[in-house]
Amino acid sequence: MTFKASVLTLYPEMFPGPLGLSLAGRALEAGTWSLEAVQIRDFAEDRHHTVDDTPAGGGAGMVMRADVLAKAIDHTAPEGDPRPKLLMSPRGKPLTQARVRELAPGPGAVIVCGRFEGVDQRLIEARNLEEVSIGDFILSGGEPAALVLLDAVVRLLPGVMGNAVSGEEESFENGLLEHPHYTRPQEFEGRPIPDVLTSGNHKKIAAWRRAESEKLTRDRRPDLLAAQPLAK
Amino acid sequence: MTFKASVLTLYPEMFPGPLGLSLAGRALEAGTWSLEAVQIRDFAEDRHHTVDDTPAGGGAGMVMRADVLAKAIDHTAPEGDPRPKLLMSPRGKPLTQARVRELAPGPGAVIVCGRFEGVDQRLIEARNLEEVSIGDFILSGGEPAALVLLDAVVRLLPGVMGNAVSGEEESFENGLLEHPHYTRPQEFEGRPIPDVLTSGNHKKIAAWRRAESEKLTRDRRPDLLAAQPLAK
Repeated sequence: MTFKASVLTLYPEMFPGPLGLSLAGRALEAGTWSLEAVQIRDFAEDRHHTVDDTPAGGGAGMVMRADVLAKAIDHTAPEGDPRPKLLMSPRGKPLTQARVRELAPGPGAVIVCGRFEGVDQRLIEARNLEEVSIGDFILSGGEPAALVLLDAVVRLLPGVMGNAVSGEEESFENGLLEHPHYTRPQEFEGRPIPDVLTSGNHKKIAAWRRAESEKLTRDRRPDLLAAQPLAK
Repeated sequence: MTFKASVLTLYPEMFPGPLGLSLAGRALEAGTWSLEAVQIRDFAEDRHHTVDDTPAGGGAGMVMRADVLAKAIDHTAPEGDPRPKLLMSPRGKPLTQARVRELAPGPGAVIVCGRFEGVDQRLIEARNLEEVSIGDFILSGGEPAALVLLDAVVRLLPGVMGNAVSGEEESFENGLLEHPHYTRPQEFEGRPIPDVLTSGNHKKIAAWRRAESEKLTRDRRPDLLAAQPLAK
């Protein structure tokens, strides 16, 4: 089954962008996923192709019109399209690896990229858009966030990662940040690889890595420890 | 002053990518910021241009070598370069709008994009890399995260945003998610714009927006309310 991504944007030329290269690019060529970039402006009906207007109640910036976006969405995902409809927005629920893992085996995603001050609230409600945030910062638009979301999803699609084991041991997959990594050379600027890692004692290595993971998470992200039990 | 971004990556062709278009692209052309993509592989010394090796202690995947990355960093940012050196990594401190606002008026940033399982820990320590995470999910590499970080920074550079007021009223700038937006048409699929917004009473409008912001933040992101005082 192909994961079918449709991105609604004022900048379709931003896609596939980085997703056309490396792992995601090869998977795109192989047909593991598909990507359609839909120009929202094509659904405006006046001769200036207006997609935005001033905010009701006043204030800075512009707001994307509900009627134009609704036409773009309905054209891209007619009734019965099983794909979730997402709106990339700093007001959304923070994206997690758990949500990424839910999306990956599904039929795909329709992703609306907001611009300007935001999107008319009635469109969000009428089309039941799931607002998704990639973090507590403000972007110029939803496009870089959509690229991030798709990159995270695509690497989980069957056959995309060279080494299937790789996906399992990483940060967040077990609720902890990942332990430090080391590789050759044995000594770098006077710094050796920690002895335990070259001991050949697999039990000790596993225990060391677990302890380092827990320490790092405690130091940097105590919120992760509070959010879920340590043991799987 | 120009914000000078140097990105160290195995995929320099991913840059500027989306940052070559729209607001960021115009600012790049105007010289408000500059972007240099440095191929890490060029600093490998063997004839296969090897940048990675197997993890000490065993396990899946590959680790980026400290010595090759150190050469790339030292070449890009020789001693005395005042720019912060960042490593995009899910183990990092979560990026916030406050950190974005600190970076924007500075001299720029050197951004290392990790790939594979990660980067040799000794490089992170020896070059004092600041590990930055854009969220609790796993990407194919640091490149999409670097694009996001730069997009967030560039929109704050002088002259980049059409309307300077716009930056101030958005999500996170006051510790709250942004209130809902509405614009014409007055009625959309039977849904009217809330009366208060068309009342012309600016005091009532401001109070309504504040209340909606607080309600939305309470519902979706109680962690933001806990993290900081409500009033500025």
